[in-house]
Amino acid sequence: MKILVTGGAGFIGSHTVVELQQAGYDVVVVDNLCNSSEKSLQRVEAITGKKVPFYKADILDRNALEEIFTREKVDAVIHFAGLKAVGESVQKPWEYYENNIAGTLTLVDVMRGQGVKNIIFSSSATVYGNPAVIPITEDCPKGQCTNPYGWTKSMLEQILSDIQRADTEWNVILLRYFNPIGAHKSGTMGENPNGIPNNLMPYITQVAVGKLPQLGVFGDDYDTPDGTGVRDYIHVVDLAVGHVKALKKIEERAGLKIYNLGTGVGYSVLDIVRNFEEATGVKVPYVIKPRRDGDIAACYADAGLAREELGWTAQYGIREMCEDSWRWQKNNPNGYEN
Amino acid sequence: MKILVTGGAGFIGSHTVVELQQAGYDVVVVDNLCNSSEKSLQRVEAITGKKVPFYKADILDRNALEEIFTREKVDAVIHFAGLKAVGESVQKPWEYYENNIAGTLTLVDVMRGQGVKNIIFSSSATVYGNPAVIPITEDCPKGQCTNPYGWTKSMLEQILSDIQRADTEWNVILLRYFNPIGAHKSGTMGENPNGIPNNLMPYITQVAVGKLPQLGVFGDDYDTPDGTGVRDYIHVVDLAVGHVKALKKIEERAGLKIYNLGTGVGYSVLDIVRNFEEATGVKVPYVIKPRRDGDIAACYADAGLAREELGWTAQYGIREMCEDSWRWQKNNPNGYEN
Repeated sequence: MKILVTGGAGFIGSHTVVELQQAGYDVVVVDNLCNSSEKSLQRVEAITGKKVPFYKADILDRNALEEIFTREKVDAVIHFAGLKAVGESVQKPWEYYENNIAGTLTLVDVMRGQGVKNIIFSSSATVYGNPAVIPITEDCPKGQCTNPYGWTKSMLEQILSDIQRADTEWNVILLRYFNPIGAHKSGTMGENPNGIPNNLMPYITQVAVGKLPQLGVFGDDYDTPDGTGVRDYIHVVDLAVGHVKALKKIEERAGLKIYNLGTGVGYSVLDIVRNFEEATGVKVPYVIKPRRDGDIAACYADAGLAREELGWTAQYGIREMCEDSWRWQKNNPNGYEN
Repeated sequence: MKILVTGGAGFIGSHTVVELQQAGYDVVVVDNLCNSSEKSLQRVEAITGKKVPFYKADILDRNALEEIFTREKVDAVIHFAGLKAVGESVQKPWEYYENNIAGTLTLVDVMRGQGVKNIIFSSSATVYGNPAVIPITEDCPKGQCTNPYGWTKSMLEQILSDIQRADTEWNVILLRYFNPIGAHKSGTMGENPNGIPNNLMPYITQVAVGKLPQLGVFGDDYDTPDGTGVRDYIHVVDLAVGHVKALKKIEERAGLKIYNLGTGVGYSVLDIVRNFEEATGVKVPYVIKPRRDGDIAACYADAGLAREELGWTAQYGIREMCEDSWRWQKNNPNGYEN
């Protein structure tokens, strides 16, 4: 079975390619490399011992997609490609809607033209907005997103669901990620953000490695045990394995399915700092800053549905997430740029 | 001041062109004619005595838009173009998302490239979903739409709002239409739907003119005075005038504004049938059918904000809406196709 992975050179994408190849799938990657490095795929190849056929192309480029689908006999698409920086999305909303929504519409149209009607989509817990109840189950109503990035995820869920309802030959699995951190055990692959990281773990590791002076903690007066925001951090390899499991579900012709991918455990920012320091022996100085607009107090998953229907549960705990994030950062202080 | 009207050959678009020209604006129309007739613009010209420069083009066609904007010195856009059949949108969701959302993204990108940052957008009361309270004010939270057509309106509101927030040179006015019916007093312009009408009034007039045998009334067991659905019908000429008022607001550099355009009065399906029969002397046989999926019991506007901020209120009552709809249908039994 051949899987096209869009955005396959990115953080979650590249880790998923490893798991797919190790599970015996043929993989083809398309990525425009606007926020990723082709080197990640060399690292994948070094781990799996298999070639990763790669096309540098944009999902808005219909002709390029047509050519890829015509050349490769793809059975399913795992669709990661998209812009993903929350703050940037507020500044450049048009670019987010165009790339993420118009791009996905183009991808989906090429897919149906080629008779490929299986897709796993990278969604996010951000679609829940400020959740009414936690832990969050999949039937929790979607909420108001606080930025265009989040809206693109929420809108694409609606669009893909409507497409599946109109044509039940489609199998659509929406995976709502909680907060992916960690890195491959090898220390050769990991998160490689441009500029000052938006997300906590790359921020911590860049402080630990000396690239940034201190960690900014945004708000310590939330209604949480230590006042800092609580999130459901999940090891990227666990997340990657979740996609392999979802693919099995696609093979069963599952129709439309939605799964949370989280551990079900919430950790505060200071929990993560403490665990990181204990796991690595490296001190992470931090300073409390004002709350960021749109941040919520606490968010963690009820991961029961993925366990029941996909047979998937997260294997790695917070200690390993910290160790693995650190191994990657320490060995690759400048990410994929040597 | 020159206004580009997308979808200007359509029902609401063509009536708006009349009011714009009569108010002294220069108007240019772009329409792909996929669900409208260029003849409507001849009728406009006959009423106003002014030429309506027309470009047959699709809003997804970036090159065509670039050329129009380069040739015409447009100051603002009134954006009607879009697919609008609720039932069809359930069958063909991709087409709705592509035309309405990707199309608007292309339009907006060409606009900003040309420095034109004023837009009035055709939204709909459908964005409220099943409203928590009626009459509906603009701060009523947006709800779950029941079809892709409605979602395209809701999503485009979000997208245009985000674009305005990111670049406050934009002036964006979202007009949430209630249920437009009626026709120009001349009897030469009106609604011209393809196939069996989705909407009540064209259905009634086609029964009255003998093109359809009887009216289907979808549900008589709603929680309303006579059990049939209650809506806020508004004369299309009133709606058109609302756009002229909104343009004044744009000229004041209003930023982002949202207005309901409705009368504030709800009529049931049977109220409309009775009023139509009284206004025209023509009998409209009807049959009660099951409820349609996604229809709600009652929906009417609080039109106070448009009154206060735009100085706009609907002038025409239900009797004139019926008379005018009928004059159009009777004089043009096949719409614009003679």
